[in-house]
Amino acid sequence: MGVEERREQLIGVALELFARRSPDEVSIDEIASAAGISRPLVYHYFPGKLSLYEAALKRAAEDLASRFEEPHEGSLGGRLLRVMRRFFDFVDEHGPGFSALMRGGPAVGSSATNALIDSVRQVAYQQILSHLRVTDPPARLELLIRSWISLAESTALIWLDGRRIPRAELESQLVHDFAALAAVGAAYDEEMTALLRHMLKDEPHDGPFTDLAARLISLAS
Amino acid sequence: MGVEERREQLIGVALELFARRSPDEVSIDEIASAAGISRPLVYHYFPGKLSLYEAALKRAAEDLASRFEEPHEGSLGGRLLRVMRRFFDFVDEHGPGFSALMRGGPAVGSSATNALIDSVRQVAYQQILSHLRVTDPPARLELLIRSWISLAESTALIWLDGRRIPRAELESQLVHDFAALAAVGAAYDEEMTALLRHMLKDEPHDGPFTDLAARLISLAS
Repeated sequence: MGVEERREQLIGVALELFARRSPDEVSIDEIASAAGISRPLVYHYFPGKLSLYEAALKRAAEDLASRFEEPHEGSLGGRLLRVMRRFFDFVDEHGPGFSALMRGGPAVGSSATNALIDSVRQVAYQQILSHLRVTDPPARLELLIRSWISLAESTALIWLDGRRIPRAELESQLVHDFAALAAVGAAYDEEMTALLRHMLKDEPHDGPFTDLAARLISLAS
Repeated sequence: MGVEERREQLIGVALELFARRSPDEVSIDEIASAAGISRPLVYHYFPGKLSLYEAALKRAAEDLASRFEEPHEGSLGGRLLRVMRRFFDFVDEHGPGFSALMRGGPAVGSSATNALIDSVRQVAYQQILSHLRVTDPPARLELLIRSWISLAESTALIWLDGRRIPRAELESQLVHDFAALAAVGAAYDEEMTALLRHMLKDEPHDGPFTDLAARLISLAS
């Protein structure tokens, strides 16, 4: 194998192991053994476990960011729901590695890993803005999107801890959460009200946002 | 000064400095100088900057946790609003230290600091459960409370980054967010519906939850 090929193989092996156990619990020996090479040879390609971890995280981050891409077609609720499905696919595939990363800890709290996590959040933020066709977001819209992204992260983390709620429900709940938080924000801001009306106007009668509005009315009555 | 007294003084000085600049940017020399003692003497009380940082964090965590205490009197919305005011007081007082801590980074991503942050989250979680008079929360209620706590954290962090939205609005918005997210959760779960009705039944006509319900109805119509 060439150098790049071997590096890619080791990254793949590491990601598979991190998907089953926290990176803190996976040794270089295990990675070497799973890749069928010697421990010193692993160090030939990656100077230490942290550099292999960071390379694996970089690949996972690119993978996740690519799942946020969604055609600008159909209702906004439907688009967000499809992205949530792919987000939970990712979370499901990377379980323990995702948890360890997002909860921080000895192997994963470095500046480089934090910067990488933030870069994925930034991709998610920009994607949502582009679907809303907003280029210069007011402060309340930025708050809505960024705080909803953190809500999605924590929902996924809590789901991974025992999987006590079916993920399909959480995917659709997060779409509803976005609309509900937008509705709260609209109380304070004319622009947010206009945005919410724009979000809701192209929604189909059986879409997730219409469903939520009907439910809120029945609860309030 | 006695040993304990001197340690407490250094913790106080460190917290004041961390309230103005990120802990990463504050040197032991500055802490020594602000406390009016020599650098070697600081090391006599704290073996390194991390141990002083952790002691300061511990005191700040106890301070924050104590602000979550609220008498079990009056409407739930009013209680949560008072806690949110005290939470933003804390965030305001500890700005850069709070940001650096919650965003992770070289000085702050240790297992000990993460465990301390989680212990404060756990206090917040238990306080909310006790106000809802729930001892054995179903999975969806646990999700609601824990994910709302992360929403409150990220809202505070985004506020600190430029303070572009008046904090009083964010305090009341977070109370509304809790009710809105509960309303979304109620779609999937009978228990959550019962809980939401319980939350809303004692609300005054001019309270934050009633305000939200009226607004949602007007938006949906």
